[in-house]
Formats: sequence, structure tokens, C-alpha cells
Amino acid sequence: MMMRRTALRFGFREVATPIFEHTELFTLKSGPAIVEEIYAFQDKGGREIALRPELTAPVIRFFVNELTNFPRPLKLFYAGPCFRYERPQSGRYREFYQFGAELIGNKNPESDAEVIGLAASIMRAIGLDQYHIRVGHIGILRDRMSDHGVDDGSCAKILQKLDKKMYEEARSMMEEAGIPDHAIEEMFGITQVRGDVSVLEGMEGEDIDYLKGVFQVLEWYGMDDIEVDLGVVRGLDYYTGIVFEVEAPSLGAEKQVCGGGSYSLSELFGGEPTFSTGFAIGFDRVLMALDKEGVDNEPEGLDVFVVPVDDDLRSLAFQLTARLRESGLATDVDLMRRSIGKSFKYADSMGARFAVVVGQRELDQGSISVRDMRSGEQRLVSLDEVVGHLLEETRRVSSS
Amino acid sequence: MMMRRTALRFGFREVATPIFEHTELFTLKSGPAIVEEIYAFQDKGGREIALRPELTAPVIRFFVNELTNFPRPLKLFYAGPCFRYERPQSGRYREFYQFGAELIGNKNPESDAEVIGLAASIMRAIGLDQYHIRVGHIGILRDRMSDHGVDDGSCAKILQKLDKKMYEEARSMMEEAGIPDHAIEEMFGITQVRGDVSVLEGMEGEDIDYLKGVFQVLEWYGMDDIEVDLGVVRGLDYYTGIVFEVEAPSLGAEKQVCGGGSYSLSELFGGEPTFSTGFAIGFDRVLMALDKEGVDNEPEGLDVFVVPVDDDLRSLAFQLTARLRESGLATDVDLMRRSIGKSFKYADSMGARFAVVVGQRELDQGSISVRDMRSGEQRLVSLDEVVGHLLEETRRVSSS
Repeated sequence: MMMRRTALRFGFREVATPIFEHTELFTLKSGPAIVEEIYAFQDKGGREIALRPELTAPVIRFFVNELTNFPRPLKLFYAGPCFRYERPQSGRYREFYQFGAELIGNKNPESDAEVIGLAASIMRAIGLDQYHIRVGHIGILRDRMSDHGVDDGSCAKILQKLDKKMYEEARSMMEEAGIPDHAIEEMFGITQVRGDVSVLEGMEGEDIDYLKGVFQVLEWYGMDDIEVDLGVVRGLDYYTGIVFEVEAPSLGAEKQVCGGGSYSLSELFGGEPTFSTGFAIGFDRVLMALDKEGVDNEPEGLDVFVVPVDDDLRSLAFQLTARLRESGLATDVDLMRRSIGKSFKYADSMGARFAVVVGQRELDQGSISVRDMRSGEQRLVSLDEVVGHLLEETRRVSSS
Repeated sequence: MMMRRTALRFGFREVATPIFEHTELFTLKSGPAIVEEIYAFQDKGGREIALRPELTAPVIRFFVNELTNFPRPLKLFYAGPCFRYERPQSGRYREFYQFGAELIGNKNPESDAEVIGLAASIMRAIGLDQYHIRVGHIGILRDRMSDHGVDDGSCAKILQKLDKKMYEEARSMMEEAGIPDHAIEEMFGITQVRGDVSVLEGMEGEDIDYLKGVFQVLEWYGMDDIEVDLGVVRGLDYYTGIVFEVEAPSLGAEKQVCGGGSYSLSELFGGEPTFSTGFAIGFDRVLMALDKEGVDNEPEGLDVFVVPVDDDLRSLAFQLTARLRESGLATDVDLMRRSIGKSFKYADSMGARFAVVVGQRELDQGSISVRDMRSGEQRLVSLDEVVGHLLEETRRVSSS
């Protein structure tokens, strides 16, 4: 799968955590109300357990219990089913598949850019054509509110309104919290700062400089399609630094396919506070977006399909199949004793790139016939060279 | 993961099924008593649902509902968590991970050999050094019992005893079923036929010929370490043809790591009877076996770690990192602004094969320094050629 492959290229390593966790893990992170939205119950021993509704808390719990002595940063990714107890609706199922990554143990723009860069590369790798990645910094608004004496609880509620662009509700809450009008207008203005990194020119402050640093590294990576959007504040309390979202406009109103940011959760699970940055991708939404864009989401096909012309040649065909598989080529062979024509048809339906026809006439000349399944071209290749030939041809095809 | 990669090379395709299924799916396959051993409950709508205890029934249900019109044979594999409700014990957990494969829709020795061959190739690919694959045919004993008028129910119970080599219990049941002494002795003899394929010489019958055909194809595949064992009868009712087991002797008494055979289950779930062959591998047992053998089960390391010598060179280091990742190499870069020495240490702990040092002195000559992390050898490579050089070097390393 392309997501996994991309994460491995970025030097992230796969971790797996249990489907069941203690319910407390999720109430610690998200508050007691989460119990209503998850599959939580008592097991025979009276323990409160739940089917995991998300993967960040389990991965950070795993880090706290098992991985704190590993060299920093830890770059982890994961993929697996999660569950929520609610009425299914479009793009939201009770069982859903999440892919995510966390970079744990380092706070600087390089690390944040690494995580955003991975999310962007995954969108490209899976073939999504239209997506927007928007990056903000939650500290910019939080610091301003704190300057005006707004407590953390009110701040979180106001940010939730601003996250949803509910300016009227936000205004009355901000007035109530004692923020003067000009500061309210300034903050509203900040939530509307959006565009390429040049929109940050003229703005000042530690968080702005940090965000510029992130975009500097993204530019080094050649990722110039990522936007600044200071209106991204994510409706969750636990983010502390950069925050970002990926949207697929083809999905209409429910267009977010990925969300992430930097945070520290490990102290909730008994560990030292540890700076982390991560994201989660909702698989179902991504598949819907690919579908809307008409992206062919077929699994990668076979490299080679081997066809013996008659029964006497099956032994050679199976030997050749074993050699091709050992060389790393995805290879299948006729298991049904079909005619050549029917074998070609099956090979085609399996997306085979080449068919190798093992026939006596060609073998008498020490060769074998290789058919390009797309062009229909057929050529003779010496039996000794056929593995090398196919390795070269498939490499050419996959890199083109 | 090597299991997945091996299955793809064999032309199998990955499928995923839900964690929850209707409880009925498992009672249909395994009988009502299974409910005691699984996580089964009612959801809010009063439906009887269960966390899947195994993956064959879900995959066949998926085939019946969604895939019956696909070209035959279907070659499917799957990997994921399963659950059982029992006291945990060594190598048996409540949540466990299963990998498996099913070849659906074709009955002949080629197809059975394909499935056994995949199981054998997976054992080799994961690095298991000591394993025995033993293949039998459940029809050989069943037909003999049927010849003596033993009904299916009694036959299944007798086979379960023979599977466990409980000959005394088997004998009294067989006598009760009216099997004459000489036939009992003959059947006991059959369960002790074990060795390479030559042990079948002189034996006759359709099932024996079929089994010889399977071993013929395995020989074509070059798999000569697989044994005949007519004592393998698997303690499950639903197998109908070949049956096989893989054991890792390092595990002692609980040594089975994989079991499989051919069967037809689709008619239980509303489909046409469809001949299939499959197997399941218990992940936890395999990991224990690798551990006992001292096999290094570390994830594959990085190909390249990029180290900028000073801050001015970070932009070039990150650009180079992006190029290396695009070429397919698993690449990481110093995100911590560490010294060269500390970066090497981190690269080493991540299992990096090569380190690329981006330094001004070398750059002035248009080059870059590439360090082999195993030998410590360091050489200058031209900046233009470094991606190609590393692609070639890592290819050489991985094929050696």
C-alpha cells in the first residue's frame, strides 16, 4: 500500500497497538464524555475496556510504556481499524480504518516539516490530484488571548468557534471574556490570513518565526503547494504548536481527509512531557475522494503471467515461475490448465504486465516468447536471459 | 513485511474484512459451542455480533457476497487481528494476529501446491530456519471408513483421535463403528506413513495419485523439503482434501505455526459450493519461534541517513533527502541539528546502511562523502551521481 511505502521511505517505522485498551486511556485524552461515543464495556474481570476510537493515544501510551529509552526522535506510523458507537452516515462508519504517524521527542521546524511533508507525499503517492494542505499555529491566537487574561478553558471554547468560522458566537464570548474590540478585530483578521508563505511577511512574534521556519524546510523539500492558513485552529484542546489539515475539495462539505499538529500527551499516561507532532488520515474519506476524482484505485497488478502451451511444458513453466518470484517479480502461472487464449484473458483481468509463453517450437531454439500485455507486441528472448529481461522491462515500466 | 511481500510475488491479492461480524457466521462454520470461546454480544439494535475469532469464514463470506463473478481462481491473502475469549497462556493471547491465504475456485494439484508453496516460501522469507511442512490427504482415511459404513459424525470423531495419535481411544471407537481389526490396523498404518514422496510408492487410489500430483508440482517449484505425512488429518470437520501443517520444533509441545487444507465453505453462507484451499499462520507463535532461533526480527533499517556538516548546508541536505526518497530509498535526515558524531550514532541505531555527509570542503569539488555504516569505509561521490550510486549500492546489498 502506497501510504506504508511512503512512510518507510521517510524513515518512519510501523507500530501496532491492541484493538482493546483501558477506557481510561481515551477519557484521559478526550474527557469523560467520549464514553458515549465509543464501544466501551466491562470484561469478565470487571475491567473497563473499549475498542479504540483513534490511534494517537494508544501510540503515545505505547511510547510511554515501552519506548522512552529509544534514540530521539522516534518516527512511528500505524494503520488499523478504529471504532465509534454512532449512527453510520456518509463517509463515517462504525468501524473505520485510520493511518497515522507521530514524530516523538523533538521540537523544531524541521520535525514539524517532516510530518507535514509525509502527509503531503502520501496524498501525492496515492494519486489524489486535488488537495489543499493548510498549516497554522495555534499559539498565535492563544498567546493573544492569554495577553488579555483569558483563561485556558474560555480560550478553548472561543477557538472552537473560530475553528468553525462562527464569528458572531466567538465575538460575544470574546467580549464576555473582556477582550477589547480592536483586539477582537485583530484576531478575526489573523484567522483570515491565508495564502503562500509571503502572507506572513510583516507579521511578528515567536510563533510566526517558527511557522516561517517550517515553510523554509518544506521549500527545501520542494513542497511548494502547501499553504499558510492561520484560521486552522483545530477544535481540540491538546494541540500546542503547529496545526494542519488536508482537504479534498471533491468531497464537498465533509472534505477533511487528514488533520494533525504538535502536542504533548505523554504526561497524561505517566510519562515525561514529550513534544510530538503527528497526523491521522481517515481512510474512508480518502477512498471516497479518489473515487470522486475517478482515480483508478486498483491494486498493483502482476508483473508476469506464465503460460505453458501444453501439458508437457508445465514443469518448465512452474520452474520458471519459481525463478521469477525469487527475483522479486510478482508472478502467476496458469493453474487451471487453460488454453493460451483463455490464459491471456485471465492474465489481462489480473492486470499482468507481461505474459511468458512456454512453447516447444521456441524452446527448440533455446528461447521463450514474451508478450507485452498492453501493446500486444511479442518477442523471443533466450531462456537464459528471460529473468533479467523481465526485471529490466518491469523496472522501465514502473519508473516511467 | 515479508509475509505480505511474498504473497504479492505469488500473485495473491490482499483483502480486508471487518473486525465485527454477525455471530452466525462463526456458528455456521464451527458449531454453536464456539460462542463460548469468542467475544459475542448484542449491539444496540439487538443484533448478535462478534469480534472475529478467525479469518477464513469472513473471507469466504466476502467472496460469496462480492466476488463470485471474478475470474477463477481467486488468490487472496489477509492479515489482521482476531479475538478469543479465554484465559491467556503461553503463545495464546485474547487478541492475536493472523495471516492467511485462500485460493478459491479451482480443484487440482497445481492449486494445492501453489498454496503449500506460498506457506513454505513465507517461512523461508521471514528467516525461520527450522520448520517442517507435512502434507496429508484427509480423503484417504475417510474413504476407508466410509467403505466400512462409518457415518460422517463418527468418522469426524475418530479422525480427531487419530489427529492426536490417541490410538487406544480411536481403536475402541472404530471397533464400535464396526470396522474389522485388519482394517483398523491398516488405517493405523496409514497414519504412520511419513517421509519424502517416495513413501507413497506402491500405494494406490485416487487420493494417493492426487497427493503425488501435488508433490510433483512442488518439485517443479524446487521445494524439496516438504514431507508426506498421512497422519495429518487436522481436527476440523470441514476439510475435504489435502491437509497440511507447519511446525517449528524450537517451540516444543505447542509447535504448530500454520495449518491449512482444502475445503468448501461457501455453501454455508448462501453461495455455490466452491472448492478452496487455504491456510492460516499464527503470528505470535511465529514470532516466538523466530525469537527462540535467535533470528534478528528487527524491522528493515534505513537505506540512507543524510548529515549536514553545518547549518548553512541544511537546505542542500534536505533537498538531497527529498531526491533520495523520490528514488525509492528509505532516507532520513538529521532533524535535531546534532553534531556529525552524534548523527552517526543515531543513524547506526536506526540501522542505516549508508550515511551521506554534506560538507563544504567536498562540495567545493562538486562531491559528497558516502560512508558505509557497516565497514566504516568512506568515499567521495560526485553530487550528480550520488542518487544513482546509492541506488546501485543498496541494490547490491539487498541482493547479497
